[in-house]
Amino acid sequence: MKKSLVALALLGAFSGAHAQSSVTIYGTLDAGFAKTTNTTPGVSSPTTIGKRDNNKLGFRGTEDLGNGLKALFHLEIRMEPDTGTIEGVTRPLFQGQSRVGLQGDFGMVRLGRGLTALQESTVAFEPWNGLPNVAGFQTDLQVGGYRTSLAGSGSDSLGQAGNSGNRFANAVFYNTPVYNGFQLNVTWGSKENNGAPAIVGRGTATVPQYVAGAMASAYPYSVSATYSAPGAAPQYSILLATERNATEAKLYQIAAYVRPLPALKLMATYNKQDLEHFIAAGRPNSEMNSWVLGLNYTMGAGKLLLGYGQKDPELVAKTKQMSIGYEYSLSPRTYVYLDLSNKKLPTTATSTTSITQNHYSAGIHHNF
Amino acid sequence: MKKSLVALALLGAFSGAHAQSSVTIYGTLDAGFAKTTNTTPGVSSPTTIGKRDNNKLGFRGTEDLGNGLKALFHLEIRMEPDTGTIEGVTRPLFQGQSRVGLQGDFGMVRLGRGLTALQESTVAFEPWNGLPNVAGFQTDLQVGGYRTSLAGSGSDSLGQAGNSGNRFANAVFYNTPVYNGFQLNVTWGSKENNGAPAIVGRGTATVPQYVAGAMASAYPYSVSATYSAPGAAPQYSILLATERNATEAKLYQIAAYVRPLPALKLMATYNKQDLEHFIAAGRPNSEMNSWVLGLNYTMGAGKLLLGYGQKDPELVAKTKQMSIGYEYSLSPRTYVYLDLSNKKLPTTATSTTSITQNHYSAGIHHNF
Amino acid sequence: MKKSLVALALLGAFSGAHAQSSVTIYGTLDAGFAKTTNTTPGVSSPTTIGKRDNNKLGFRGTEDLGNGLKALFHLEIRMEPDTGTIEGVTRPLFQGQSRVGLQGDFGMVRLGRGLTALQESTVAFEPWNGLPNVAGFQTDLQVGGYRTSLAGSGSDSLGQAGNSGNRFANAVFYNTPVYNGFQLNVTWGSKENNGAPAIVGRGTATVPQYVAGAMASAYPYSVSATYSAPGAAPQYSILLATERNATEAKLYQIAAYVRPLPALKLMATYNKQDLEHFIAAGRPNSEMNSWVLGLNYTMGAGKLLLGYGQKDPELVAKTKQMSIGYEYSLSPRTYVYLDLSNKKLPTTATSTTSITQNHYSAGIHHNF
Repeated sequence: MKKSLVALALLGAFSGAHAQSSVTIYGTLDAGFAKTTNTTPGVSSPTTIGKRDNNKLGFRGTEDLGNGLKALFHLEIRMEPDTGTIEGVTRPLFQGQSRVGLQGDFGMVRLGRGLTALQESTVAFEPWNGLPNVAGFQTDLQVGGYRTSLAGSGSDSLGQAGNSGNRFANAVFYNTPVYNGFQLNVTWGSKENNGAPAIVGRGTATVPQYVAGAMASAYPYSVSATYSAPGAAPQYSILLATERNATEAKLYQIAAYVRPLPALKLMATYNKQDLEHFIAAGRPNSEMNSWVLGLNYTMGAGKLLLGYGQKDPELVAKTKQMSIGYEYSLSPRTYVYLDLSNKKLPTTATSTTSITQNHYSAGIHHNF
Repeated sequence: MKKSLVALALLGAFSGAHAQSSVTIYGTLDAGFAKTTNTTPGVSSPTTIGKRDNNKLGFRGTEDLGNGLKALFHLEIRMEPDTGTIEGVTRPLFQGQSRVGLQGDFGMVRLGRGLTALQESTVAFEPWNGLPNVAGFQTDLQVGGYRTSLAGSGSDSLGQAGNSGNRFANAVFYNTPVYNGFQLNVTWGSKENNGAPAIVGRGTATVPQYVAGAMASAYPYSVSATYSAPGAAPQYSILLATERNATEAKLYQIAAYVRPLPALKLMATYNKQDLEHFIAAGRPNSEMNSWVLGLNYTMGAGKLLLGYGQKDPELVAKTKQMSIGYEYSLSPRTYVYLDLSNKKLPTTATSTTSITQNHYSAGIHHNF
Repeated sequence: MKKSLVALALLGAFSGAHAQSSVTIYGTLDAGFAKTTNTTPGVSSPTTIGKRDNNKLGFRGTEDLGNGLKALFHLEIRMEPDTGTIEGVTRPLFQGQSRVGLQGDFGMVRLGRGLTALQESTVAFEPWNGLPNVAGFQTDLQVGGYRTSLAGSGSDSLGQAGNSGNRFANAVFYNTPVYNGFQLNVTWGSKENNGAPAIVGRGTATVPQYVAGAMASAYPYSVSATYSAPGAAPQYSILLATERNATEAKLYQIAAYVRPLPALKLMATYNKQDLEHFIAAGRPNSEMNSWVLGLNYTMGAGKLLLGYGQKDPELVAKTKQMSIGYEYSLSPRTYVYLDLSNKKLPTTATSTTSITQNHYSAGIHHNF
């Protein structure tokens, strides 16, 4: 009598066991102490347990398909280490990214959700390497306030409330190969309804320019082009990038870095943002310029970070930020850090008056 | 002085490190372009980034307990690759399944949540192998609309709003071994309150037949029996299945497939659904019949899928669907696909008038 | 022509591939049948599919930094196996714990969210080893009702609604090394707003003592000190512990166990809880005493668990619980179990009258 448990009805459940698996688990945990003064005028935050970097738990894999072709995927959970929730409590589980695609002689093409070409390219030109902490420049000045300042701006302007502002959902991501140091990166988004809340824009509260659940009014795209002098650590690199989001906010960026000494990296970025599609010209924030200067200096296991930047929105008070940070590596995967910053910013998003916030944070950063 | 960090208070946190681990990570990422016409009469969807298959990230393991006995578990996250959220935004994290149990000479018994016996068995008789995409038949015609058409139908009729309709929660899953090609599969659910919204049924809006948070009015069960002609790829297979859900909707299914040539699989399925427990006889949808015919033909790395089916609910317009698909394998784990379908369906769930939708999708499917 | 896909813009996405990974996946799946009588007076629960232990899927790693120093982290998902949701449907994804830190000659220091020193230390003195099931004593009597009985009590008294009551978020966790059998464990929490609902306390519904989103009125802390007679399975152990939560509820605990025979463990715990900061003296529950006696006896692959305990809140009916359990190991990682208990408890949290509940559960427990 033949007797076996491997029946048709169960094949679906177990067939994966025979496939070669190539999943790598990776991630970052970063937690520390932080304090900010003047979070509301005259009031400081309590000392909190927070983070300097995004905390993530990721799953990725590549499969060699032969002839130089590869399939690849990334699924990246983001979380808050101090409370154990997913990032921002309400963001997508795979907030980091969820993408699948192919890589070959033609470059790399992926589908899903992830950082746009501009947002992914710009971090190498920011003195905190794109970390989202308060002392860094990435979230605000490095992208000219485009990412977070106002409803309708940011890469994900028609995403669900609470989503981070530097990704496209429902998108195609294409990166060319690097030819003689040149690379072009393009992100294209569909017009799909992503469950966004209404954006008043040039409309009124009852007749908003973008109703709740609106589709994009034009295809969102993001393009970045880089030239890097060849070498493992390029002597210099130049970035040109532009992006138009689902509500037709536009960002133009130029950035460069140079390494006059192997241990020294000097950076500069300039942005111009145009929100006139949904903010009438001459209204607060309809245009915005920003720039950031940065320096990294490596001393043995230590690394010094310095940055200064300004943001100048139309008819709104200037933002000015100065930051200093220090990282001390305990291993290639683990370091401790101290960040200090001083930031003058508009009291509200449309104020002509300013407040000044001081911030410190100190903690531990561990990659796995 | 004895000095060690391994103290009692910490044993709990670290003891797992000594145990032999046998966790396998597996999953599927599938993303592509899709478009459907007449999603509302006269209006087409935009081109979207969507999926053809369920996207999953799973964790499973088996432990050999000796004497032919094994412990086994599955935890399967489901997600939307285009937005990074969990499946359907609000479904359970381990939407795919969460089950633990034992396997031995007696068969396999598992506890938790997963596909019912009927839903798990039927996929082998559907031309898209149970994939949930629009061109496939699984979600609608293959189970006669039982799964999704009306509140109170579907396997999970008293689950939380938004749950998928083909699973039992709080259930016991038993599969016999295969004896001479025969196998019996039984799923039994408890009557537990699962947080369902109210179902009006034969009651009224103020006095619904099933109040919010109601328990099952009878124990839900699902039974499937299969006979497969022995062999790695059986020459033919027959399925008989029936299910009664928590609101006493009933489904009866008979299905078969045959392989006249090694590369050719022909399939047929017939269903009868009875909703009379909560819809009065002679009201729309109280009974429903459906059938699906399918064909798979393998040509080298390519595979052709064809299907045609009808659903005939009482006093409601018929549904008629014709689909064609093509898969091209880049490896045993990765393929690209193109699906086309034409579907005539009732304008609403109780309409006697119809609309016609055309659908296309093309993308990449990657297992890991 | 130099041609490579490893461009600057993509380094961030793939750099982890070069790092040595040291992630271990671990977890527990436990599911079984359960039934409780008198869940409301005169009504029994249906037979349900439930759990005896917390179900978890964890990720952890340690990195040797040299000189006896290690970096370590834990990320622990909790879930409900019977429905596939995260624990309690609304709890943080990493409900088990999310912590990162360093370990060395100085002991171990971690940041994030996890069990407090008292809650982590006390489980070794409870006859069900801290399991949360109904027959066990951990959730209620072992910590004197401090964990769950009233808004404002429990370790996480200003956490989000639905959070479990035995953890600190935004906390620092320090454990000394073990010196001659002695160990000290300290948890300190920040005052951060964790999104708690209002707690009326000594205020009124309109002017609650703790408004929604209140910060802690004093720094929460938890301290435990243990002495264990050296050895892999200590002959005896003593625990002294105290905790003050964010709403200044206080708990004092003394516990001990002894092993007169290698197979026999006898345990006793005594608690005193003081809620007078937010409940006026002389009101129900303002003070509370509890004690638990327990026994574990190992017989080959079997293990017998016995326990009896009482809780005596001020002006409220006493709780009395007697439980018996049996575990049978199928392997070092897998066992089946049967638990029975009889519990007399106040009809409501402030009642002077009692009801009696009988409970049984039987299932399978699998570690991976």
